[in-house]
Amino acid sequence: MAYEFKMQRRVEFAETDMAGILHFSDFFRYMEATEHAFLRSFGESIHSGEGVLGWVRTHAECTFRKPVRFEDIIEMHLIVREKHSKSITYGFIFRKDGDEVALGSLTVVCVTKDGDGRIRARNMPECIDKNVTEAPPGSWE
Amino acid sequence: MAYEFKMQRRVEFAETDMAGILHFSDFFRYMEATEHAFLRSFGESIHSGEGVLGWVRTHAECTFRKPVRFEDIIEMHLIVREKHSKSITYGFIFRKDGDEVALGSLTVVCVTKDGDGRIRARNMPECIDKNVTEAPPGSWE
Amino acid sequence: MAYEFKMQRRVEFAETDMAGILHFSDFFRYMEATEHAFLRSFGESIHSGEGVLGWVRTHAECTFRKPVRFEDIIEMHLIVREKHSKSITYGFIFRKDGDEVALGSLTVVCVTKDGDGRIRARNMPECIDKNVTEAPPGSWE
Amino acid sequence: MAYEFKMQRRVEFAETDMAGILHFSDFFRYMEATEHAFLRSFGESIHSGEGVLGWVRTHAECTFRKPVRFEDIIEMHLIVREKHSKSITYGFIFRKDGDEVALGSLTVVCVTKDGDGRIRARNMPECIDKNVTEAPPGSWE
Repeated sequence: MAYEFKMQRRVEFAETDMAGILHFSDFFRYMEATEHAFLRSFGESIHSGEGVLGWVRTHAECTFRKPVRFEDIIEMHLIVREKHSKSITYGFIFRKDGDEVALGSLTVVCVTKDGDGRIRARNMPECIDKNVTEAPPGSWE
Repeated sequence: MAYEFKMQRRVEFAETDMAGILHFSDFFRYMEATEHAFLRSFGESIHSGEGVLGWVRTHAECTFRKPVRFEDIIEMHLIVREKHSKSITYGFIFRKDGDEVALGSLTVVCVTKDGDGRIRARNMPECIDKNVTEAPPGSWE
Repeated sequence: MAYEFKMQRRVEFAETDMAGILHFSDFFRYMEATEHAFLRSFGESIHSGEGVLGWVRTHAECTFRKPVRFEDIIEMHLIVREKHSKSITYGFIFRKDGDEVALGSLTVVCVTKDGDGRIRARNMPECIDKNVTEAPPGSWE
Repeated sequence: MAYEFKMQRRVEFAETDMAGILHFSDFFRYMEATEHAFLRSFGESIHSGEGVLGWVRTHAECTFRKPVRFEDIIEMHLIVREKHSKSITYGFIFRKDGDEVALGSLTVVCVTKDGDGRIRARNMPECIDKNVTEAPPGSWE
């Protein structure tokens, strides 16, 4: 059972903007990439589980504290803040050389396509459920 | 004095993901594009004002309610939720055919470069200050 | 029958890089957006035509002559350079204030999914075929 | 002296489009990321060398042979096709499980800002020049 995961990433030129920093929208892409790497870390994908269509994003937010620049190496620290039967809220601490540069959050809901072709929430598959657990109190903030 | 602004945009192919919908990170790009169009609407740019370096993003968030697809026309409705001497918080209502599909928020701080080359917050320039006002209570939610 | 199409677009902040210019990869996104607007101009989409899955890109290129910056208004001038039964090669002239800033090219092939689920080239649908024609000699270069 | 460089990369969700494949414009971002990793491999950056502003892209192209999907691991094989005093043309072979999926090319020119603030081509810095050499005939195609 895992409640956290860390990975690193180097800021690419195409991700910078004319202010010379990582564009703020790319922090959200970094969060998602970390979420997917977290699932892969126990051998699963976003499409794992019979009938699972994927994980819809319902909320995302990020607070930006310090600028991040080209070629900086950023650590993304994912923490499982909340886990329900159908959804997970991940927290993300972005660090550069140990300093917190941003704090993010992403809520995702497991979905399937019902008989009518409509997308609806469903319980997350066993293969994810058995591997993911909420972080102990105090792990976040 | 303006406290709201609307513009439309058609979802492009490159903005969709393999789930067939507008990628969630692109909502943040749409917010920023609307903010900049708002400033241009009274003849100013993000670089307007002597010594103004730009507007740093300190917080961004978005709640996603309905999927948005290729070639959908999205209305972005910007509302000035809070205005302080150095910062503005914008709210964004995204609509498709009149339906709310997402709700966003973006806080930006006016910055300059001081003598030491460090970035610090400063009062927003007169040309923006005189044109932007807070929306009346009840305009948001 | 159309062999050319023009549209304009303003460079957005998120599309610039730390060199202060439109990132070169975004010229390719601009080409595709123009191609799709061209198809919409006679009422069709990339998915128009029974059994048409879409248009696969087989080649893309661009020569960059002058930098393009934030808030610049760019004209994209699409020209149908070659049309075959299954494919189209579009040329693109990018202009800023009348000056050529870049020259691009994009070859796309109409595809379908056959009985085995494999993607293969097919004749373009009538609704596109009847509307698109090759530009007369000398329209390009 | 190096004339080739290889690195791998896993396709991310945000890079896919509604056709379920890596968007064609992202191949160009992959090329640039590989070019920059190549320079870093001998300890240099795109800004290395006194007075060097960076490397302007003058031409880019790519031929797409096979689709690339979410979570595929792509190998980018950079080959120095041409080296002149001021410019380099890189070739790129993209492979998935050993199969060629795309072939790209990127020409970059070393630039500086002259006294008038204008950008102009200049000889590449010694630190790059001494490390980069043209691939032997036959290395490409």
